[in-house]
Amino acid sequence: MSTGHLPMTVPAPGLPARVRIHEVGARDGLQNEKAVVPTEVKADFIRKLADAGLRSIEATSFVHPKWVPQLADAERLFPMVSDLDAELPALVPNERGLERALALGVRRVAVFASATESFAKANLNRTLDESLTLFEPVVRRARDEGLHVRGYVSMCFGDPWEGPVPLPQVVRVCTALRDMGCHELSLGDTIGVATPGHVRELLRLLTEAGVPVGETGVHFHDTYGQALANTYAALEHGVTTVDASAGGLGGCPYARSATGNLATEDLVWMLQGLGIETGVDLARLTAASVWMAAHLDRPSPSRTVRALSHKDQ
Amino acid sequence: MSTGHLPMTVPAPGLPARVRIHEVGARDGLQNEKAVVPTEVKADFIRKLADAGLRSIEATSFVHPKWVPQLADAERLFPMVSDLDAELPALVPNERGLERALALGVRRVAVFASATESFAKANLNRTLDESLTLFEPVVRRARDEGLHVRGYVSMCFGDPWEGPVPLPQVVRVCTALRDMGCHELSLGDTIGVATPGHVRELLRLLTEAGVPVGETGVHFHDTYGQALANTYAALEHGVTTVDASAGGLGGCPYARSATGNLATEDLVWMLQGLGIETGVDLARLTAASVWMAAHLDRPSPSRTVRALSHKDQ
Repeated sequence: MSTGHLPMTVPAPGLPARVRIHEVGARDGLQNEKAVVPTEVKADFIRKLADAGLRSIEATSFVHPKWVPQLADAERLFPMVSDLDAELPALVPNERGLERALALGVRRVAVFASATESFAKANLNRTLDESLTLFEPVVRRARDEGLHVRGYVSMCFGDPWEGPVPLPQVVRVCTALRDMGCHELSLGDTIGVATPGHVRELLRLLTEAGVPVGETGVHFHDTYGQALANTYAALEHGVTTVDASAGGLGGCPYARSATGNLATEDLVWMLQGLGIETGVDLARLTAASVWMAAHLDRPSPSRTVRALSHKDQ
Repeated sequence: MSTGHLPMTVPAPGLPARVRIHEVGARDGLQNEKAVVPTEVKADFIRKLADAGLRSIEATSFVHPKWVPQLADAERLFPMVSDLDAELPALVPNERGLERALALGVRRVAVFASATESFAKANLNRTLDESLTLFEPVVRRARDEGLHVRGYVSMCFGDPWEGPVPLPQVVRVCTALRDMGCHELSLGDTIGVATPGHVRELLRLLTEAGVPVGETGVHFHDTYGQALANTYAALEHGVTTVDASAGGLGGCPYARSATGNLATEDLVWMLQGLGIETGVDLARLTAASVWMAAHLDRPSPSRTVRALSHKDQ
């Protein structure tokens, strides 16, 4: 599969030389598919993603199977991929989930917080502060066990119930998660409403509050087509960790009309063109997404996947 | 129809206060549809676009009907919309086309050049220099008649036959069109391969060559999902004219797998969020695109159109 990519001969001024892609397709993507994908298919998918050069692949979630039946096979899946030369972080919603992860030898975990009261209420039936309190023992125990902990902050810009989210409130949640011990944050625009100006403003406020940009990833959704422009603005601000989903798999079950995560292939196309290293082989990655789309029996929403796979026909 | 847009409270530093959107859906979009849309529907569409606040709406092309049957009704269409409070530029491929436009009282015309030998050969069966020579009498006559002349430069970054296009060659074509008398240029990434670094580099070279950024529009395609990120990079460089297609209509018939122009709605969403004035009412524009999609019997590819129209259901 030829990618037909333009060479980038001019180094991009002010942009990072390398970006770490945090691949979320196998967890965030498949979690939001109606169909339950067989464990063997998930394992093959994760293997293909690693073969394509991705080195940070969120593999699953240790949430109660009642809430997310799509990921109920975490105990079976994890040993099938743990030999891979890639970090395989997993979501842990609570202490019970962390215990399950620890029992399997998981080395990187993530907690899933929100920047709004409404989402904390809808997702956890708690106030925002109560939801943060809930994560404290999880983060502490994970750190005690020597694990790397990521803190997701969802609904950073807009919320389907509240509308615009005050950025100082987002900064407060980010600071709380760092104070708790999270090594890394991921700023999520869960309903995809932000534009590059909002992204730059939040990153500016976080920098002012002492949150290092090198420990802050971004997680954009393409609901309004803004994900890649927002990512570019984040890169200009010094962000070096970008979440993306192979083939654009996934979305947010709580947000109406969410059209999915930023597609990893669209991101890699941009980063390659900007002369930014990712370690990813775009042709292999596209092949993995085409393979998964066939399993899901629907085309990938990634524009790059569609353009590249169409070329071969 | 509610847009649920985030307010942009912080003025965007270094970005223009206002952007002129050059709407190409009725010409570039419908030209690339298989179906021939009835003239009355086209007129209604253009009227709805003007009602939504668009003030530069490319209406049609005075090309020979044999080549573009979709736009064979230019003589009937133009008088049906010429009362609108909007500029209604039209493509003129040659002197014969210009005569037809003049006879109808068209005040703004555009010639369609290319930055590559291969495209000049495929589109006009001429060398690049011969193709430029072909436009000279057209531009001269149009200027003599007091018309505003736009020069499209297609294939500015990549070409389906040649691959990457040397940027100095693009600058040479741009300079030739300006020397000929074009008032405005439109830099087209016809096959959608460019990334923000390529865009900034071409704009830098054009500035060096004395081409004012205020007279240079950009025209991006979303084949690889890069159109909006590229637009943002162009805005950062001072560009204030952006081509877009309502609902993401259109593409390029010569480019394999072209997935269409930047959708005007996705552009407006970003510009509104950045606090940049456009004069466009996004809800009305979305309604116009939903209406046209119903006529074409297929959903709009614009993510913003899909998100906003889904909200109403």
